[in-house]
Amino acid sequence: MTILYKSDAARGAEWARLHRERAPDIPFRVWPDAGDPKEVRYVIAWTVTPDFLAQYPNLEVLFCTGAGIDSLGLGALPPSLPVVRMIEPGLVEGMVEFVTMAVLSIHRDAYAYARQQAAGQWKALPVKTAAQTRVGVLGAGVLGRAVLGRLAAFGFPCAAWSRTRPAIDGVEGYGGEGELDAFLARTDVLVCLLPLTPDTRGFLARRALAALPRGASVVNVGRGGHLVAPDLLELLDSGHLAEAVIDVTDPEPLPAGHAFWSHPRVHLTPHIASETQIPTAVDALIANVRRHRAGEPLPGLVDRSRGY
Amino acid sequence: MTILYKSDAARGAEWARLHRERAPDIPFRVWPDAGDPKEVRYVIAWTVTPDFLAQYPNLEVLFCTGAGIDSLGLGALPPSLPVVRMIEPGLVEGMVEFVTMAVLSIHRDAYAYARQQAAGQWKALPVKTAAQTRVGVLGAGVLGRAVLGRLAAFGFPCAAWSRTRPAIDGVEGYGGEGELDAFLARTDVLVCLLPLTPDTRGFLARRALAALPRGASVVNVGRGGHLVAPDLLELLDSGHLAEAVIDVTDPEPLPAGHAFWSHPRVHLTPHIASETQIPTAVDALIANVRRHRAGEPLPGLVDRSRGY
Repeated sequence: MTILYKSDAARGAEWARLHRERAPDIPFRVWPDAGDPKEVRYVIAWTVTPDFLAQYPNLEVLFCTGAGIDSLGLGALPPSLPVVRMIEPGLVEGMVEFVTMAVLSIHRDAYAYARQQAAGQWKALPVKTAAQTRVGVLGAGVLGRAVLGRLAAFGFPCAAWSRTRPAIDGVEGYGGEGELDAFLARTDVLVCLLPLTPDTRGFLARRALAALPRGASVVNVGRGGHLVAPDLLELLDSGHLAEAVIDVTDPEPLPAGHAFWSHPRVHLTPHIASETQIPTAVDALIANVRRHRAGEPLPGLVDRSRGY
Repeated sequence: MTILYKSDAARGAEWARLHRERAPDIPFRVWPDAGDPKEVRYVIAWTVTPDFLAQYPNLEVLFCTGAGIDSLGLGALPPSLPVVRMIEPGLVEGMVEFVTMAVLSIHRDAYAYARQQAAGQWKALPVKTAAQTRVGVLGAGVLGRAVLGRLAAFGFPCAAWSRTRPAIDGVEGYGGEGELDAFLARTDVLVCLLPLTPDTRGFLARRALAALPRGASVVNVGRGGHLVAPDLLELLDSGHLAEAVIDVTDPEPLPAGHAFWSHPRVHLTPHIASETQIPTAVDALIANVRRHRAGEPLPGLVDRSRGY
């Protein structure tokens, strides 16, 4: 019974080292050193092909190294294969840090002050209290809930939207298409933490972005495929939207010459909002493999009908 | 018995309106409409002159509209006049927001990524966890403690330095000149929240800044007079310091042509980190006046021997 890691080789060496320390009873191999293919019961990967998986006739579970599993190409995988997304505290905490930084930077006009500095202008802008900046998070999974918990400590009025109305203490919940406009209309800073599925591709298009109040801002830490870039740019340029913090693009890296590189109100980072932290991810994988051996439910198991 | 407000007139109107709603029994006037000078028992101001104060023979307490009272010129005031700095939750919360934003922006390389965006470069920098960014706060008053409490929630290893070693749950305390070097040597992000007194003027000079570890960053939200600008610039340019977030300068506004305006690793804001919030400050003043009438101790009373 072997776990096979197939992703970045340098990171794989670190995974293997920590795994051997913490679970010496469970063999762990880094592809291409897969050993006997019949022994491979678990694969952990960022991308896979059906041909790759077909080499392992006894594969029981496919784990993703990331929190979003869109990179695996779910539609091409055997329908009966359980797929598990990564839920580990290091990745969650990185996302909480990044989104808190982005929301505070918008709320406290950090981007406007950077433009004023470049223009040699010393001018205080009207101070808003946290009660005046309403934050709305698209997606109410592990990441969305953690982000909302930290933001609530600052006193931002917080709301979350999901396919089904989420119930989170201290957070206004909105559910489904029917409540989307009401959610958007009360949101000054929109944070996208949706999974990327055929349903959510292009979600941040003109229709949704224009439903935000004038002067709203957008933080995309979901996937580049959620956002329709020309629509965002048009609404920034018309003055409807104030700032856009963009951590994910389509494609990545963002091609040279794309308008995001030089737009003064687009703040671009190279998909670094959060990354799986190997020391904590190793523990999460070991715990899930032990649960699977014991026949227990797996946190992060993908619902194939929802696609995440 | 009258409270006299003497500061920005537009803000004064708002102070007066809220005060009358909340404490109609205590007369409140906005200078120059002072009424009978003999009735003035309390003055609230940002700056005063001895001549101004001499007009009010029955003055009992001087309140400052701000958290730092250096603008009052303590040395020229009657030694027996009680002086009280502003402690109110709106001002505290603004400072917590600003410092959290600055620390997260340094920790998550936001400034480096902005420079990469300007250079058209898509490159992930090594991710640090919060445990790898040690935050140190100079000053352990109401503001310093509030900031440390919020930062600790992110998992940053936190320390505070003050004249006497502070005892704060979950925060390493350092006290006095003898423990300053040890405090600085363990600090990756230094936040200055000291009061400005003759003792602390020029505190952030070469000696202290060079004692920070290589690659450290500085956030000055104290007063411009704490920082020796040429020393900071030299240490930024030598590569010893990484980033400087500068909210306060000496003088203010910062003169045109000052190197801070154009330095790529100086991030300048026009003294907006935090501002007294009138709705909450009115309550704080009323509560202190009532305490004074009742002979109770006043939160924020300045110790004239310490100067803050």
